[in-house]
Amino acid sequence: MRSKQYSLEDYVTGISAGDRVMLGRAITLVESAKTEHTALAEQVLAALPKPTNTLRIAITGAPGVGKSTFIEAFGMWLIQQGEKVAVLAIDPSSAVSGGSILGDKTRMEQLSVSEHAFIRPSPAGDSLGGVARKTREAILLTEAAGYRIVLVETVGVGQSEIAARRMCDLFMLLLLPGAGDELQGIKRGIVEMADLLVVNKADGERKQLAAMAQAHYINATHLLPSNSSGWSAKVLTASALEREGFAEIWAQIMAYQQSTINNGFWFENRRNQAHYWLHETLMDGMKTAFYNHPDIQAMLPDLEEAVLSGKISPFAAARTLLEHLNFKQ
Amino acid sequence: MRSKQYSLEDYVTGISAGDRVMLGRAITLVESAKTEHTALAEQVLAALPKPTNTLRIAITGAPGVGKSTFIEAFGMWLIQQGEKVAVLAIDPSSAVSGGSILGDKTRMEQLSVSEHAFIRPSPAGDSLGGVARKTREAILLTEAAGYRIVLVETVGVGQSEIAARRMCDLFMLLLLPGAGDELQGIKRGIVEMADLLVVNKADGERKQLAAMAQAHYINATHLLPSNSSGWSAKVLTASALEREGFAEIWAQIMAYQQSTINNGFWFENRRNQAHYWLHETLMDGMKTAFYNHPDIQAMLPDLEEAVLSGKISPFAAARTLLEHLNFKQ
Repeated sequence: MRSKQYSLEDYVTGISAGDRVMLGRAITLVESAKTEHTALAEQVLAALPKPTNTLRIAITGAPGVGKSTFIEAFGMWLIQQGEKVAVLAIDPSSAVSGGSILGDKTRMEQLSVSEHAFIRPSPAGDSLGGVARKTREAILLTEAAGYRIVLVETVGVGQSEIAARRMCDLFMLLLLPGAGDELQGIKRGIVEMADLLVVNKADGERKQLAAMAQAHYINATHLLPSNSSGWSAKVLTASALEREGFAEIWAQIMAYQQSTINNGFWFENRRNQAHYWLHETLMDGMKTAFYNHPDIQAMLPDLEEAVLSGKISPFAAARTLLEHLNFKQ
Repeated sequence: MRSKQYSLEDYVTGISAGDRVMLGRAITLVESAKTEHTALAEQVLAALPKPTNTLRIAITGAPGVGKSTFIEAFGMWLIQQGEKVAVLAIDPSSAVSGGSILGDKTRMEQLSVSEHAFIRPSPAGDSLGGVARKTREAILLTEAAGYRIVLVETVGVGQSEIAARRMCDLFMLLLLPGAGDELQGIKRGIVEMADLLVVNKADGERKQLAAMAQAHYINATHLLPSNSSGWSAKVLTASALEREGFAEIWAQIMAYQQSTINNGFWFENRRNQAHYWLHETLMDGMKTAFYNHPDIQAMLPDLEEAVLSGKISPFAAARTLLEHLNFKQ
């Protein structure tokens, strides 16, 4: 294993110096299923600086909305403003489909060759929880490597967006122009999570449609219950193709940050997120240990069958298993 | 403790004979926090007959829709058809509010004194999971006592309905007459869960409004994605006050049962529910045992503070705790 050849110091020195190859190797450690790899990754994380002036932006939208093109163009725009930008992804379907969002770097031609950008496809995994946890750790590693802005792309199907929300400071939803049917394919819950709605492809003949969609969404978001951040969602238009609208998007991101730092939400949210991931990881670790226990694996099939056939109650079966491992309810 | 004075045989004999006092005592055992009580309750459940021809109906609706009056009238109507009816409830807020739905039996004057009915308020509890689990066990006890029909009332706020859905065969949503604003206060997800929508208070001057609401909901439910039961939701009107509409409701319940028995969903659903409750109880038991462990209680506060202040990552903290108890991730 190539990744085994490097010491804790190699990783810490490399990442602190912004070495993208070492950063990539550290994320590979995080993604590894081997305990010694993830343990080393944690030592690396513990030893690295933890900048707090970073900005984590979740970006989602239905297929066809032009997420990759938007991220490429917006990412390049941010780099022109002097920023370093990392692009990560959460796509729990990547293990099944074999493909992965961001897997094909040619989708982001300029960004993928910029020395100020770092692009990493979604980690594979058999559960959203596992995939998301790896992305969350990758955020910390990229921040330590000097990427102040992290864009987290998701696939727009619901659960990944909730996970992205739980690790980002701000949630951006990309929309298609064309009023009336623009809610199609986007769950209401995702619209409600958005701090910033951006009608993309506002170019050429679609400019007017985009303005109509913008007006529609301004109305729609006014009806939404107010967010715990105290921020009301803003609706903007942009053209990734013509690279228009980015300055206004950035201004709103800054306004969001200023507003939520002022009212205390910004850091409170980050603390809540850390609390969430701690207890989520605990639950997941317990679950894995429990179901992998040889005694449980031996006992569970018969008990499950007895429950499903109605011979014993689910509660009696659960108690049998828990008591076997000396758990008390 | 009065409940300790009875033996396993006392409970089994009493409940099998339909003794409502012994049934009530057995549910008290289920609800007890003491391990010896719940263990005895499980022995009682294991020894009791498990009739499969039972019918579990979840009933919900926004406050003011007349749930109690409806359950009283519909329950009496079912008894007139020769049925025995149990009414249970899931209300996780009852521990906080001090009151409980069904707590005041005077709300169901006739039903509460009928010898063919059994009414039990919502169990108290500090989590929805705990409250729901107790209700689920109470269903099994009342069925063993000969109550073929169990009505499970919920408060209409969202989470309780999902729990009720997971223990009932059919989900009935009560609605108020008056088209246009009738979705107020009812989450879309609850409407989507409903197999049967009943516009209540269809009496007097409200008859026409009720018909309009019915037409509206017929349109609205046509837009919903089809359910895994293969059944499309039906919309009816009823007047609990004038005791009208019950025969048609009952006919649709029978049609639902016939249709889902024919396509295999009915028993598949019950098996899935049993599977759900088994694993839900396992997770909950593990969680309780973990957080109640003296070592975890000693270690958690400092680790949590280190995570929230950003000194260590949530994943490193979780690993420390899990490894201390010899869990492997």
